[in-house]
Amino acid sequence: MSQPLQFWHHHAGISVPDLEASIAWYRDVLGFELLRRFHMPSIPADVAMLGNGPMHIEVFQLADAAPLPEDRRVPNLDLRTHGTKHFSFAVDDARVFAEELERRGADIVWVKTFPQGINVFIRDNSGNLIEFVEKPRPESTTGTL
Amino acid sequence: MSQPLQFWHHHAGISVPDLEASIAWYRDVLGFELLRRFHMPSIPADVAMLGNGPMHIEVFQLADAAPLPEDRRVPNLDLRTHGTKHFSFAVDDARVFAEELERRGADIVWVKTFPQGINVFIRDNSGNLIEFVEKPRPESTTGTL
Repeated sequence: MSQPLQFWHHHAGISVPDLEASIAWYRDVLGFELLRRFHMPSIPADVAMLGNGPMHIEVFQLADAAPLPEDRRVPNLDLRTHGTKHFSFAVDDARVFAEELERRGADIVWVKTFPQGINVFIRDNSGNLIEFVEKPRPESTTGTL
Repeated sequence: MSQPLQFWHHHAGISVPDLEASIAWYRDVLGFELLRRFHMPSIPADVAMLGNGPMHIEVFQLADAAPLPEDRRVPNLDLRTHGTKHFSFAVDDARVFAEELERRGADIVWVKTFPQGINVFIRDNSGNLIEFVEKPRPESTTGTL
């Protein structure tokens, strides 16, 4: 018989061309601190784990990786190829949040109102899409399997 | 002057070939419930928002999307192209968790011990990589920008 198990969100993994530039961007724009850097010889890759409270971004730099496909820079084009696409954070007020990100120099793709609510898409310094949606705050961090 | 703003993890977005099959897989293997289905004419796409506690997966099906690139099915090959790669959950005991996922029919890529800890990679029913790492539980859900 299956036993209930718990899990909770830990990180999103991104592959980038310039690890130092990504560490700086996630610090300056989204407040992520560098928790640790290490080399993973099995890939091989230089890796940085960034953290902001319970949220983490794991950043990989490989010596000879292929560039980000151009269509991955545009939300609706990115979805036209199957796979893991964007990751998304929630905020109390999407428009106020987008204004603050703009002050911090973020590349804002759009701030749009849909029937499902307001969302904001930005690109990080490498062109990776990140979404912010306006939502009520959650009460706990764990789900049940 | 910048004002502090809070945000928290909300969802990972995936693009899949068969929305119904993905809804069933995330329910049966990872305990995500279907919260709502809707059509987004601006993409256009049929969309399902799945939830398990504070965690969400947003699943998009587009009529004529390109298939998942083969290298995206293998963790170390996936990293060889820049972009947003896998999303990762944390668990109390990665090996126990992997055994339970295997009982539920998950496609286990590996259960490996690294200097940084134990991780498990699986593929969802569409071939998308999902990682589980063994970590202490977080105390709160929000980070500070």
